Amino acid sequence: MADLEQNKQVVVSYYQTAFDGEPEKAVELYVGDRYIQHNPMAADGTDAFIGFVKWIRGENPQLKLEIKRVFAEDDIVITHSHLTLKPGEPGQALADFFRVENGKVVEHWDVIQDIPSTSANDNTMF
Amino acid sequence: MADLEQNKQVVVSYYQTAFDGEPEKAVELYVGDRYIQHNPMAADGTDAFIGFVKWIRGENPQLKLEIKRVFAEDDIVITHSHLTLKPGEPGQALADFFRVENGKVVEHWDVIQDIPSTSANDNTMF
Repeated sequence: MADLEQNKQVVVSYYQTAFDGEPEKAVELYVGDRYIQHNPMAADGTDAFIGFVKWIRGENPQLKLEIKRVFAEDDIVITHSHLTLKPGEPGQALADFFRVENGKVVEHWDVIQDIPSTSANDNTMF
Repeated sequence: MADLEQNKQVVVSYYQTAFDGEPEKAVELYVGDRYIQHNPMAADGTDAFIGFVKWIRGENPQLKLEIKRVFAEDDIVITHSHLTLKPGEPGQALADFFRVENGKVVEHWDVIQDIPSTSANDNTMF
């Protein structure tokens, strides 16, 4: 169980550090010897990740990533998060899956959905 | 650990049975005394879920749900799935989170993304 909690901490630190504006530091501290990317918008490797975060933060300096919940099993950590590019916008719901090997992130999958401005229920997407 | 494996089985059976075309049976066997819905397109309760599955299968009789991986922690089960409405289409990537209480599904969140026809990497979204 200790490893699962440690893996969660690695992933949360990696993800939040990057989106808070320090993607190079996040990669240096928390990514392993490779970064296998399944997000279809990004190439493999950390350069594409760093470039993406810098670009999206440049376009949206008030960007805010709120990691709502974190789960772990075996070598996988799952996060369910709310990304807001501009204050007051509904933002996006994100599910991310990270594979952690020897305490470092080595692989990433995600699913991203724009949050609609109206909903058929009162529960929010989180 | 037994409960986690049992919860995974409940969720996989629920989800696959419903999308294979028997949503009423899925609800009867696997849903608890309430169904809290976070998908913004659906109302709370199982009636909306059954109606949605019947509608989408009616529109897409060759619909196929492939659950790629399943994780569990505490009372939450997470699935990462590929939904194809029509053969040959890229389909959608789905991340679903289910809360299981006393062996029954009682709450559901999801994140849904259309899979683009081209990708910046060769790894697929799964």
